[in-house]
Amino acid sequence: MTEPTGHMIIAGEAVAGSGATIRAVDPSTGAALEPPFGYGDAGDVERACAAAAAAFGPYRRTTPVRRAEFLERVADNIEALGDALVERAHAESGLPVARLTGERGRTTGQLRMFAKLLRDGDVEVPRIDPALPDRTPPRPDIRQRWVPLGPVAVFGASNFPLAFSVAGGDTASALAAGCPVVVKGHDAHPGTSELVARAIADAVAASGLPAGTFSLLFGHGPDLGTKLVTDPRIRAVGFTGSRTGGLALVAAAQARPRPIPVYAEMSSVNPVFPLPGALAERGAEIAAGFVGSLTLGAGQFCTNPGVVVAVDGPALRAFANAAASAVAACEPSTMLTPGIADAYRRGVAALAAHPSVEVLAQGVEHDRPAACRPALVATDADAFVADEALREEVFGGCSVLVRCRDAEQVRAVAAAMEGQLTATVHAAESDHAEAAELLDVLELTAGRVLFDGWPTGVEVGHAMVHGGPFPSTSDPRTTSVGTLAVERFLRPVAYQDVPTALLPSAVADGNPDGLLRRIDGRPGRH
Amino acid sequence: MTEPTGHMIIAGEAVAGSGATIRAVDPSTGAALEPPFGYGDAGDVERACAAAAAAFGPYRRTTPVRRAEFLERVADNIEALGDALVERAHAESGLPVARLTGERGRTTGQLRMFAKLLRDGDVEVPRIDPALPDRTPPRPDIRQRWVPLGPVAVFGASNFPLAFSVAGGDTASALAAGCPVVVKGHDAHPGTSELVARAIADAVAASGLPAGTFSLLFGHGPDLGTKLVTDPRIRAVGFTGSRTGGLALVAAAQARPRPIPVYAEMSSVNPVFPLPGALAERGAEIAAGFVGSLTLGAGQFCTNPGVVVAVDGPALRAFANAAASAVAACEPSTMLTPGIADAYRRGVAALAAHPSVEVLAQGVEHDRPAACRPALVATDADAFVADEALREEVFGGCSVLVRCRDAEQVRAVAAAMEGQLTATVHAAESDHAEAAELLDVLELTAGRVLFDGWPTGVEVGHAMVHGGPFPSTSDPRTTSVGTLAVERFLRPVAYQDVPTALLPSAVADGNPDGLLRRIDGRPGRH
Repeated sequence: MTEPTGHMIIAGEAVAGSGATIRAVDPSTGAALEPPFGYGDAGDVERACAAAAAAFGPYRRTTPVRRAEFLERVADNIEALGDALVERAHAESGLPVARLTGERGRTTGQLRMFAKLLRDGDVEVPRIDPALPDRTPPRPDIRQRWVPLGPVAVFGASNFPLAFSVAGGDTASALAAGCPVVVKGHDAHPGTSELVARAIADAVAASGLPAGTFSLLFGHGPDLGTKLVTDPRIRAVGFTGSRTGGLALVAAAQARPRPIPVYAEMSSVNPVFPLPGALAERGAEIAAGFVGSLTLGAGQFCTNPGVVVAVDGPALRAFANAAASAVAACEPSTMLTPGIADAYRRGVAALAAHPSVEVLAQGVEHDRPAACRPALVATDADAFVADEALREEVFGGCSVLVRCRDAEQVRAVAAAMEGQLTATVHAAESDHAEAAELLDVLELTAGRVLFDGWPTGVEVGHAMVHGGPFPSTSDPRTTSVGTLAVERFLRPVAYQDVPTALLPSAVADGNPDGLLRRIDGRPGRH
Repeated sequence: MTEPTGHMIIAGEAVAGSGATIRAVDPSTGAALEPPFGYGDAGDVERACAAAAAAFGPYRRTTPVRRAEFLERVADNIEALGDALVERAHAESGLPVARLTGERGRTTGQLRMFAKLLRDGDVEVPRIDPALPDRTPPRPDIRQRWVPLGPVAVFGASNFPLAFSVAGGDTASALAAGCPVVVKGHDAHPGTSELVARAIADAVAASGLPAGTFSLLFGHGPDLGTKLVTDPRIRAVGFTGSRTGGLALVAAAQARPRPIPVYAEMSSVNPVFPLPGALAERGAEIAAGFVGSLTLGAGQFCTNPGVVVAVDGPALRAFANAAASAVAACEPSTMLTPGIADAYRRGVAALAAHPSVEVLAQGVEHDRPAACRPALVATDADAFVADEALREEVFGGCSVLVRCRDAEQVRAVAAAMEGQLTATVHAAESDHAEAAELLDVLELTAGRVLFDGWPTGVEVGHAMVHGGPFPSTSDPRTTSVGTLAVERFLRPVAYQDVPTALLPSAVADGNPDGLLRRIDGRPGRH
């Protein structure tokens, strides 16, 4: 089936929600899209969570290879949806087909990456401290492996209808860890969500897994979302979205009788620091790259470069002029939803009205309700540090240039900023001494520090960190992109003097799973 | 100096607190001990946190070997205090000298274990995904290492005046991670705390580290403790103590403008499951071991076996009779403080007054205000599951025997219990099928599952997990004992296309630190 039917998918079954009805909107035309989708209610949450809890036992006991085959099936099924999936996602999000084709590749690539991690036996590194019977007192045999936390609730993001949504990174890493998943789909792309959910549910069935391994619900965030997060069977939450939404989920999760971890990726302005040598050497090139990154996908990336911090002077003025010209020439881009476009316009207007802000450029004027004009504004470092309104994220293609007196003030601005997903430095060879001092600040502020590039475009791999200190995420100790993300859904358990016949294979004698393990701390495939 | 002087130690300086004055009490005599200690105030918190923040930069940039030397110096200095330290701890806690001598060895052993971890280059496993310039699009060079979170607040526990206190596991692991530490010492052993704090401060000075790397404060928990946890410069918290105290710290940490992680080890009743075959084969032996573990250290261990769950029948009755006789013969033991003894007596009295509870035995009667009589009471599984009052921890040597109809009810009781630090199974060969089913439940309930032994006596090593689901801890994803504990105070950072000259050594080309690293996911010392 390649057309959405307006259903939730609960433990393999198509369920029509009995609540309020929503339709996706094509943001490029404002037209409502068929079919209608009914919101789910408390009974649907109950049913999905009960099924997930029932699935947890059998699912967590599957072998890593079986979970790998399942994830690969999900990827295959998503690809089998063909153009229909990309077209539906395009209609619902306004994102270009080429971008969505790339995003689909990223989504299936992530699923296969976690499958490979499972096949390679690299989800966890068990530890074994063998018994020392002759020690005084004798040391028992202690073995440690990692077990999945339990059913995970995932909240789809608006800005990545595939890669951070129903079968996105949170879902893939939770399933890899051995956790059933209940997704709350985003209202902006219900049809895309249903199609992907069917791809997952079909893979669940074809893999002979319990149907409750996966469910998709629709519903009102503060109502159904809170019900989902506070259901006692849910044991962790993955979220990508606004700071308000993320903090509400954290508060709900903390208020439970048994609190659970929430991995919320929320808010980041992703500062860029072009240093004097780099500006002098290649200011025009940096300006072009900056505006390209700022306006990519209508600026709707978590890693969009929303702040530029540099020492004022002729080189920065030349950079600002070049960037302003490029911004002024930008045609309007369609945003994901009319509501997001409204919020963007309000954010830019508030900045423009700020007494310490000068508007350097805005893109070409237009009258399309769901489109945006990129914007570049400027302020000075003292004002930026003094007023947090200037440091808040405006979701979309808007950036604030912060002019500093000297390198020391650049570092002071960096230190005054809240936690960030990324921080970017542009440095010539002559800037390296200063860059080293700045790096020392930025590695404490951001999850990823990059040089001479742009923060948009998050590579999926082993070393990536898509995370960072609060408020960029609610938990800086991890990442939502890359293989490390699987650790979010695991916890360690120690087995002391457990009889050989009863030991889990991950910590069994002879290493039957071929895992990297630490024996008395010493790592090896032993 | 081997006599306490009544001072806090703030960034290397002895400071007399200006607040309320406390004295330690020898619980075996009720006598107040000299000298008096003044509580610190907000100014002292400010001073300690400012010094810790100033120390963080230089301290985190020390080489692992330098941090190892520092931790070894701390261990040497604690040993150099000689008998004076053990004697003071004995006077303040009532714990036997032999136990405290062992605890001192455990404390210095932990410090040296983290030092070895640093020398072996095993604190973190950095990751490198090398650039792929020929890929479309080209892949950047991405390298991931772990950075310390920042200054850590540690709350000393009452029941381990050395191993979970000023230089205990939380402090040792935070210092190993590169985090300065501010300890709030426990009121029950201020003199011990001051002596150990001086040993650390002397090691800070001798190692040429910034004085703010370590401070010790005294103060009222809800007042000074909250100030410490909500100071913006504190970035993580380690705590061992009551559920009320731990939850208060979690709430305070979550209510900060920038929330921080709290690792609170709180409450656990550590259920024991003697299976039918084991009871038939060696019930008397299990009863003797059980009462030994229950009454060890007056029952004042986090891992004290507070619940026994088994199928009713002749073998269980024989076990209960043997255990009751052993309990009834127990002489009173001095508890850590008169307040703890009071709370213990109230807890036992409440259980004894419960309509579904039968008192099987209590230890020898006495009239010592700070001493306790161990207690063994019994109830049935239906009552135990129905009333959470029966499942709450009574800190001290009291245990509840839960009689079940059959093996299925044993598993139901296990599943109904809250998160635990430990769960213990006693199984004969003939019990293995049942033990396997039970293990499946217990590994989701407890941080450590052990067979045919006793939960008291937590081995310090690589594979230990001293942690577990809520409420045994506030964060089940980690451990407060063993080398894995260091990860609590680190977070990952990715470096993308950072110039070779600026890369941290952990992720530099050629692996100058000799670390285990993952290159494209493949582990090795490369």
